[in-house]
Amino acid sequence: MTDDTPKKKPSGPLAAPGRIKEISSAANLIVKDIRALAQKRHRDETGLFLVEGLKLVLDGLDAGWELGTLVVSKAALQGGSEVLTRAVSRAVGIGADVVEASAKVLEAIARRDNPQSAIGVFRRQSVPLAKIALGPGEVAVALDRVRDPGNLGTIMRTADAVGAKAVVLVGDCVDPFSLETVRATMGSIFAVPVVRAKEAEFLAWRQGFSGQIVGTHMTGAVDYRTPDYSAATLLFMGNEQAGLSAEMAASCDVLVRIPQAGRADSLNLAVATGVMLFEARRKVLTL
Amino acid sequence: MTDDTPKKKPSGPLAAPGRIKEISSAANLIVKDIRALAQKRHRDETGLFLVEGLKLVLDGLDAGWELGTLVVSKAALQGGSEVLTRAVSRAVGIGADVVEASAKVLEAIARRDNPQSAIGVFRRQSVPLAKIALGPGEVAVALDRVRDPGNLGTIMRTADAVGAKAVVLVGDCVDPFSLETVRATMGSIFAVPVVRAKEAEFLAWRQGFSGQIVGTHMTGAVDYRTPDYSAATLLFMGNEQAGLSAEMAASCDVLVRIPQAGRADSLNLAVATGVMLFEARRKVLTL
Repeated sequence: MTDDTPKKKPSGPLAAPGRIKEISSAANLIVKDIRALAQKRHRDETGLFLVEGLKLVLDGLDAGWELGTLVVSKAALQGGSEVLTRAVSRAVGIGADVVEASAKVLEAIARRDNPQSAIGVFRRQSVPLAKIALGPGEVAVALDRVRDPGNLGTIMRTADAVGAKAVVLVGDCVDPFSLETVRATMGSIFAVPVVRAKEAEFLAWRQGFSGQIVGTHMTGAVDYRTPDYSAATLLFMGNEQAGLSAEMAASCDVLVRIPQAGRADSLNLAVATGVMLFEARRKVLTL
Repeated sequence: MTDDTPKKKPSGPLAAPGRIKEISSAANLIVKDIRALAQKRHRDETGLFLVEGLKLVLDGLDAGWELGTLVVSKAALQGGSEVLTRAVSRAVGIGADVVEASAKVLEAIARRDNPQSAIGVFRRQSVPLAKIALGPGEVAVALDRVRDPGNLGTIMRTADAVGAKAVVLVGDCVDPFSLETVRATMGSIFAVPVVRAKEAEFLAWRQGFSGQIVGTHMTGAVDYRTPDYSAATLLFMGNEQAGLSAEMAASCDVLVRIPQAGRADSLNLAVATGVMLFEARRKVLTL
């Protein structure tokens, strides 16, 4: 089942079956290229990113995202894993390359002690801000300079869970396609459209947005339960340390605050965003 | 201001001032003992834990927790940091040892690239389950086998923010006094009583608990907004992967579910707990 001869892929409407390679050395050039995707610079250069774990890879395929390379555990394949064998056939069928890798190679790519049986290299997708249109009762969430990869991934997961239409990253945010963020999304990276926008671009778009922008701010004078979320709503959450910048806060229609009782200064950003998202969708979400 | 001569502390009701030592080698025995507290085994043996950062150390002192040793950056002290100098005086005044450490030593203890200017070694505190009594409208949160240190810390932070009375760790939970959990609590480790209980102990206590136990479960038939939270309420949240065990689920008065819209299987545990805690305290928390 292995084939070390590189083949040229034919271009054209019909995808040719992908190639299958077997690699046991972490020093192999293909492995080096894949490992390099742990760095943002290489993701930006190639437009690719890493997805760890068979379940997440299948989520990506189901969502129609372009898989470039599938790295699978040779041992697990030889052990007769049916689900892995099916994933390999599926990857080959859509023209992805398949790498059968040793445990050492899988560890080297994922930088983990407990490597997964599959790692996918997918092409990134994001959506231009101009494409974001919200109808009545619909919600999206914007983040001002979010810094923590785990927070971003968790927020994308929650946005997916409540049926939010997009996550808009405003200004200098952490990369949504980092290993850590993708991990924390638990597959929602493939389900929730991600938008990246500079501050100026966001402010320009905001002029034409007919819905409301509800910002969460520690000086907010309005209880977070007060706004009428039956309007199209963009929730705007600030940076972990600094909150919304003055300029971003000024772009909001209303600044709300989540009341608190204890001595904690503030909530974790992902928790605060979760509370806001469930509030905004309160009338829509039912069992 | 340094004194390398070890002094015996007098016993008795009046605490003697603590000693001040200067250490520049990460191989020093005191440093090794402190570093060892990164491991659970050593925390269990000594009953001590590490707190990184001057703000958190001051939170601990303000809350009256016992500080054994304060490690401070010698460079920051020499640079004239007033707040650090005051912290050192305060530590000495209550009988804690103070270690003036090099940047290398601070890095070695905290295992970080950007070490803090202060690290405190505190004595752990926890509360027996028997002490947990909830009045009407009061809430506490119990966690069944929580595994992720960041989740636990974030949950403690949220519990603090809503004024919950305790966090009860049932069964084999992650250690609330690990570096990562303490970091994620943002100081709430000193504010929210932590209880640790084996399953059997919890079930026995449950017999005498007159309030309601509201469990969150994927088979829950009741919307999470339905229970009357004006009763004393223990929210019971399950393990990240497996949820509540059958036995723990059976101990609940009601099993609720948080409705979801998207394709995500579930919410992150800290987010789900945040949504539940804000729901339980909905009528109490106002701006």
